[in-house]
Amino acid sequence: MHMPVINSLKDLQQKVDEWIIKHGGYWAPLAMLSAALEELGEVAREINYYEGFKPKKQNERQLKLGEELADLLFSLICIANYYNIDLNREFDKVLIKYLERDSTRFL
Amino acid sequence: MHMPVINSLKDLQQKVDEWIIKHGGYWAPLAMLSAALEELGEVAREINYYEGFKPKKQNERQLKLGEELADLLFSLICIANYYNIDLNREFDKVLIKYLERDSTRFL
Amino acid sequence: MHMPVINSLKDLQQKVDEWIIKHGGYWAPLAMLSAALEELGEVAREINYYEGFKPKKQNERQLKLGEELADLLFSLICIANYYNIDLNREFDKVLIKYLERDSTRFL
Amino acid sequence: MHMPVINSLKDLQQKVDEWIIKHGGYWAPLAMLSAALEELGEVAREINYYEGFKPKKQNERQLKLGEELADLLFSLICIANYYNIDLNREFDKVLIKYLERDSTRFL
Repeated sequence: MHMPVINSLKDLQQKVDEWIIKHGGYWAPLAMLSAALEELGEVAREINYYEGFKPKKQNERQLKLGEELADLLFSLICIANYYNIDLNREFDKVLIKYLERDSTRFL
Repeated sequence: MHMPVINSLKDLQQKVDEWIIKHGGYWAPLAMLSAALEELGEVAREINYYEGFKPKKQNERQLKLGEELADLLFSLICIANYYNIDLNREFDKVLIKYLERDSTRFL
Repeated sequence: MHMPVINSLKDLQQKVDEWIIKHGGYWAPLAMLSAALEELGEVAREINYYEGFKPKKQNERQLKLGEELADLLFSLICIANYYNIDLNREFDKVLIKYLERDSTRFL
Repeated sequence: MHMPVINSLKDLQQKVDEWIIKHGGYWAPLAMLSAALEELGEVAREINYYEGFKPKKQNERQLKLGEELADLLFSLICIANYYNIDLNREFDKVLIKYLERDSTRFL
């Protein structure tokens, strides 16, 4: 019998849902995707700074990779909520998929 | 006093860390970013299907947005882990930031 | 007097426009953006292969970075056409912006 | 006999190459990809503004989608140059691919 590994995402999805309902409702899916892309772009900028490829302009704030990752996580959860996707279940399945991929790599 | 809203991500980060340690360790950050981009690209394809802009080829699997979102979540957590980012704390701060942005919108 | 550096993109925009008109017209802008993201995600996958982070599955085609970059270029031009953006002019301005950024970097 | 449709990108690739050589050389490929992602993220932000999903902050500049698309085009060409990809040839092949896809859609 398969025991779920991940059970912590339901709460998070619930909290984001309450937040969104209170603050105007979900955007259209392609607009949420566009917002997620904007956030991943900001993650990219931060990582290029961290890894030394890009100097920060002086008037920019200090490194804020954590904030950008959390923004991205927020928009990811919004998309999942919009489509009634159970992230616990999907994340569990992904871990199993990775395990199987890994276990057959050297056969 | 500020009470944390989100406390469910520590476990998830821990589980992903154990998984990664057992399976070869973290990639270089820009390679993890590239993987996250690949996953967001697959989320994009699925959403364009859902929203009716793109027909699926017959030999492609059924819609699998949940799986793509979980893949993206996995790579997001890998990046956070690599940089020792506490996603609970960052997610909390993001919720507060959104609340403040919202509360001043109509002043 | 400023002489244009780039004058080769007008033709390309024109050809793509003729192609699109003949084949059903432009998609909604956010759907074109989503398509561009999907293509950039495929560029990301190819670069991670080239740079050695990811093995190709055996049933996947050989490396095809050139094709993915051309797909991305196509969707980029579609977005520019949709919004009546003159890419020659914008590209010229970008080259000038980069020159100025560069020339002040060491002051 | 197949006649090339697109012949305008060689010049552009050449000009970007001269520019890059003069200004420090190409970045590592994954860093160029990260820069391209950052630019596509800015394109995303602009499109969400144009399409009405996001208000601009007052201290932000006016809409600048053209500039962001040209930035993206620049980084796309850098990646192509780095890998010695002939964009004319690849773009031609993509147009042919799209034509074939289209012509079989209703069979």
